[in-house]
Amino acid sequence: MPASRGVVELRVRYSETDQMQVVYHANYLVWCEIGRTELIRQLWGSYADVERSGVALAVVDASLRFHAPARYDDLVRITTTVRDVKSRTVTFDYLLENATTGQRLASASTTLIAFTREAAVTVLPAELRSALEQHVTS
Amino acid sequence: MPASRGVVELRVRYSETDQMQVVYHANYLVWCEIGRTELIRQLWGSYADVERSGVALAVVDASLRFHAPARYDDLVRITTTVRDVKSRTVTFDYLLENATTGQRLASASTTLIAFTREAAVTVLPAELRSALEQHVTS
Amino acid sequence: MPASRGVVELRVRYSETDQMQVVYHANYLVWCEIGRTELIRQLWGSYADVERSGVALAVVDASLRFHAPARYDDLVRITTTVRDVKSRTVTFDYLLENATTGQRLASASTTLIAFTREAAVTVLPAELRSALEQHVTS
Amino acid sequence: MPASRGVVELRVRYSETDQMQVVYHANYLVWCEIGRTELIRQLWGSYADVERSGVALAVVDASLRFHAPARYDDLVRITTTVRDVKSRTVTFDYLLENATTGQRLASASTTLIAFTREAAVTVLPAELRSALEQHVTS
Repeated sequence: MPASRGVVELRVRYSETDQMQVVYHANYLVWCEIGRTELIRQLWGSYADVERSGVALAVVDASLRFHAPARYDDLVRITTTVRDVKSRTVTFDYLLENATTGQRLASASTTLIAFTREAAVTVLPAELRSALEQHVTS
Repeated sequence: MPASRGVVELRVRYSETDQMQVVYHANYLVWCEIGRTELIRQLWGSYADVERSGVALAVVDASLRFHAPARYDDLVRITTTVRDVKSRTVTFDYLLENATTGQRLASASTTLIAFTREAAVTVLPAELRSALEQHVTS
Repeated sequence: MPASRGVVELRVRYSETDQMQVVYHANYLVWCEIGRTELIRQLWGSYADVERSGVALAVVDASLRFHAPARYDDLVRITTTVRDVKSRTVTFDYLLENATTGQRLASASTTLIAFTREAAVTVLPAELRSALEQHVTS
Repeated sequence: MPASRGVVELRVRYSETDQMQVVYHANYLVWCEIGRTELIRQLWGSYADVERSGVALAVVDASLRFHAPARYDDLVRITTTVRDVKSRTVTFDYLLENATTGQRLASASTTLIAFTREAAVTVLPAELRSALEQHVTS
């Protein structure tokens, strides 16, 4: 349900909560991945096609700051932006908010590196790199 | 930490709880898998080697009955037995208990079928089948 | 994205796959929960409100049959129906299909029982029970 | 299976892998939690008792660097150290290694803040704080 480029919303699943009655923190990394996947889909195409072409993007660096808890059945809005693109890596920033109240839940960033099927570091596919570069937030 | 054949214990992770303050039910299928993996290790070897040989065992049927909730930090004991072995399938039964109190948490069973890397149904590797057959509970 | 009553679609997350390159089987229970949650929302209201009223529905019985694998980025359609409602329990049936190809992925059913916050078995909230009863598939 | 203070080992579960045939990156946060839980158990007692006393520790900041992939059935060693303790927060560092080969898999750190049941920031329980302070790596 993208509202605009790089924006996606999802509803918190029961399985994502923990006994503190909020979303378990590791799930934010799953949501970040959904965010960048949908951004890539909007800019270029399905990430599944990147992998089918023989290149995989693996997270090598992640940082998260948690501001307020997300709860079961909340609608969460993820806004993904491209911070930096290099020949072999790309860094995404994420803002996670409660889509109903606008409350900021978390901010995060991840850096991904391109690998071949044989686990060798490689360059980003040219078209994908170009699409990402045009979306770098200045 | 196997106490005896087909028995393994694990401690409930925080990530496995949900906001009902008990273990989220889908995690019992993960635990069943740990149970059968450790049984296969004891009877034959690492399941990772089964996959390396080109055969994968996929769950085609699962049933679970939940008797009492497991909670965070509980020690859970999984007892796995082999109910039935056929040329291409194997059925495991599981008993999940609180290892400290002996309380029965859940009982389950799953049937797995052997597949090749090309997703064709195949026969169980002969040695594995033989090891499993000798452990069928009569 | 409900197409009609009891139907919901979701896209397979990368985190839901396993090294067999298909969806890990335990995730189907998560999807079933999304299916019944959306059906309850359509028939009555948010399940979060059921819990806020002091009653929780816990799965006591689950069975799943896996027909074909779901894969990363597939669009999955979940059709949830009410099979049976009793004073303290409700049984749902689920059909999971690939929304693009129509291929049947899995069929499942779960029985849930109503509990108070003090973990005592209780009756289903009257309005919810009535809404579910009107949707029983005959 | 602690080998020494702050060290715990675990075996990679099938459910923790993804279709890249390595461990899905969000699971490292789950492992970090197991690491600090076991350290707290060795230094003070069960974290479940912290929560029973009315205080919860929630992650407010996390950073991870991924060096090499963990794979299914690998034995992973987590070494947890206390970097810093303040009145209301504690920061842990984690080193994740392949326990068999010694290969470094990831390094991480998380900061946790103490909350009351009413979600108000509070001070760390005095005894726990003292136990953690004595373990700060200098």
